Amino acid sequence: MTRLIDYAEASAEVRAVYDDIKATRGIPDVTNFWKALAVHPPTLRRTWESLKAVMAPGALDPLTKELLYLAVSIAHGCRYCIASHTASARARGMNEEMYGELLAIVGMAAETNRLATALDVPVDEIFRRDTR
Amino acid sequence: MTRLIDYAEASAEVRAVYDDIKATRGIPDVTNFWKALAVHPPTLRRTWESLKAVMAPGALDPLTKELLYLAVSIAHGCRYCIASHTASARARGMNEEMYGELLAIVGMAAETNRLATALDVPVDEIFRRDTR
Amino acid sequence: MTRLIDYAEASAEVRAVYDDIKATRGIPDVTNFWKALAVHPPTLRRTWESLKAVMAPGALDPLTKELLYLAVSIAHGCRYCIASHTASARARGMNEEMYGELLAIVGMAAETNRLATALDVPVDEIFRRDTR
Amino acid sequence: MTRLIDYAEASAEVRAVYDDIKATRGIPDVTNFWKALAVHPPTLRRTWESLKAVMAPGALDPLTKELLYLAVSIAHGCRYCIASHTASARARGMNEEMYGELLAIVGMAAETNRLATALDVPVDEIFRRDTR
Amino acid sequence: MTRLIDYAEASAEVRAVYDDIKATRGIPDVTNFWKALAVHPPTLRRTWESLKAVMAPGALDPLTKELLYLAVSIAHGCRYCIASHTASARARGMNEEMYGELLAIVGMAAETNRLATALDVPVDEIFRRDTR
Amino acid sequence: MTRLIDYAEASAEVRAVYDDIKATRGIPDVTNFWKALAVHPPTLRRTWESLKAVMAPGALDPLTKELLYLAVSIAHGCRYCIASHTASARARGMNEEMYGELLAIVGMAAETNRLATALDVPVDEIFRRDTR
Repeated sequence: MTRLIDYAEASAEVRAVYDDIKATRGIPDVTNFWKALAVHPPTLRRTWESLKAVMAPGALDPLTKELLYLAVSIAHGCRYCIASHTASARARGMNEEMYGELLAIVGMAAETNRLATALDVPVDEIFRRDTR
Repeated sequence: MTRLIDYAEASAEVRAVYDDIKATRGIPDVTNFWKALAVHPPTLRRTWESLKAVMAPGALDPLTKELLYLAVSIAHGCRYCIASHTASARARGMNEEMYGELLAIVGMAAETNRLATALDVPVDEIFRRDTR
Repeated sequence: MTRLIDYAEASAEVRAVYDDIKATRGIPDVTNFWKALAVHPPTLRRTWESLKAVMAPGALDPLTKELLYLAVSIAHGCRYCIASHTASARARGMNEEMYGELLAIVGMAAETNRLATALDVPVDEIFRRDTR
Repeated sequence: MTRLIDYAEASAEVRAVYDDIKATRGIPDVTNFWKALAVHPPTLRRTWESLKAVMAPGALDPLTKELLYLAVSIAHGCRYCIASHTASARARGMNEEMYGELLAIVGMAAETNRLATALDVPVDEIFRRDTR
Repeated sequence: MTRLIDYAEASAEVRAVYDDIKATRGIPDVTNFWKALAVHPPTLRRTWESLKAVMAPGALDPLTKELLYLAVSIAHGCRYCIASHTASARARGMNEEMYGELLAIVGMAAETNRLATALDVPVDEIFRRDTR
Repeated sequence: MTRLIDYAEASAEVRAVYDDIKATRGIPDVTNFWKALAVHPPTLRRTWESLKAVMAPGALDPLTKELLYLAVSIAHGCRYCIASHTASARARGMNEEMYGELLAIVGMAAETNRLATALDVPVDEIFRRDTR
């Protein structure tokens, strides 16, 4: 069984990260991902700091960021990540129609990605010029 | 070398698809992906019909759809698709800041996807309830 | 640049493998994959012995075996393997129609694989019974 | 828990697709994949129409098509798809010997795919000529 | 359910492989991977012979070999392999600190792999020279 | 073409990262990965800080860390990363024999990963106990 480190048994270093996660997200307890990652405190802290920075509001709005995170998690086949980011995307406003369209795009991309790879399609000159 | 079928040498069936792609997108010629896929007309037609339906305006706006397509293409490592959808996303309004944030999200997702998989993190009860 | 070890400069151990590949396949020289793998003679020999056994005639005919090898190589995105196994499949009888249908299946499988993963579809009882 | 939409609660649009799946395959009920996909009726319908076209008899026989679908599903690591297509392939005639050979090919391809990628093997001139 | 072939019901050919695995590893029974693979005796035997050769002491020590095996298994998302090789690595000396560092490296590699692919970074001249 | 930002045209923020990379590694110029990543300075800085922390000496020695990075990069099929980390591993002491063994392990893991996934092997009780 995966070892999950609860707040009560956590070191001060781990608790500090848990506290920041709870405060930033306004949740009463951290999810299992963080409790499992606490097996290695430096990776726990670094991963959280990075995630907090990457998912903060920016040029992309929070919902779009969650949709992207979910789509990539599906492509990588991470069951836990799909479950958690489906929930997060819903919490940020993803409705059933948006979810259905996201699924369709991920599926179509998987299909055309394999077709383009199989055919070894040469990159069009127009796409090279477009890359600034 | 990958065989690319130009309009001039294409069959009537293939030309009909090319014509619809050009009309739908308002472009003077189809890109290499379609010219390579024309090796199998039924797959060409089916892929185009599906892509046209999936990428049409819906609950998600065209830019968000292109960002999702690009993110998945990066996760799958399709060089051609990355080049073409980076260009498409830019054409629909992706600026450098958005692009940078998308890269950061795809990278972070790849990282946490692998960590969650490695640790075999059990799905939180709260995520199960959330899945309607 | 990848180092390719030609017959002239190969050790006796490597030459013995090259000779067997040439004799088994009836070709005048081994392809680049083997010349690159010769950097580690034990892996060269073991890989060739395994491949020879796996691709030998059996319950599946040689063409079906090559089609399967090609399909998996596309799914894994190995450019060299796609090129070499597309050629091998053609040499064993894959015509344009078969190739187009293979592409369509690989693409559809990629699409439904991602959809089933995204939705975390529970395995039907009937499939469990079917697995002997 | 993944939401599965049964026939009794399905909309007319969804029922029409379910009816076609049942009639085409001669089965009393659709499998869970379709019940989960029904969360987004347009994707359900499009996916079924595509799958029906792709898996119809053609230049490749139905068993070969199922073997290819199974091999790709293994490469993509889709647990549900592996279970369902292993069952489908068996229903179409895959015996234990064929199954063992398919496993061996998928495994060998995974191995040589990684080796060729690691070594960045340049594509042989003979393979380029072979690609029509 | 996956069929697992126990020693008692195994053929002489399968028993010979089981015996060699048990003797080589000094364990009282083979693990489920081998019992499942016994569905196809030639693949069972070939896979074991290859694995025995590849994991034997060499220029890399046994712990390093297990760490590499575990890292690749995480990258490929094989749940069974992650569980078995995490256990094997621990049996060969991987402590919590090493495990944490391995997780961090696999995660970072996943992240920078995707970033380099997304940006289609040209290979530096210095890396080409370095490849002997 | 991918835009590479040289030191001369870089902003003060980017130059500060470049300076730290050069000082930490004792190299006269940063490699193309960093020049491409400079398109988004926050991602450049965060990625470098993370990589510096992850690859610093720890419970695992620098060579082992590079071998792990290389193995994962092969599994993910990142051509640039394979080239750069093959060079880095050599610079840290990877000889031809070690390289050959690493290739063999990555290949074998790819093979058994797919086999275990295909067979849906249940995790042995002994591995569950072993996971602390």
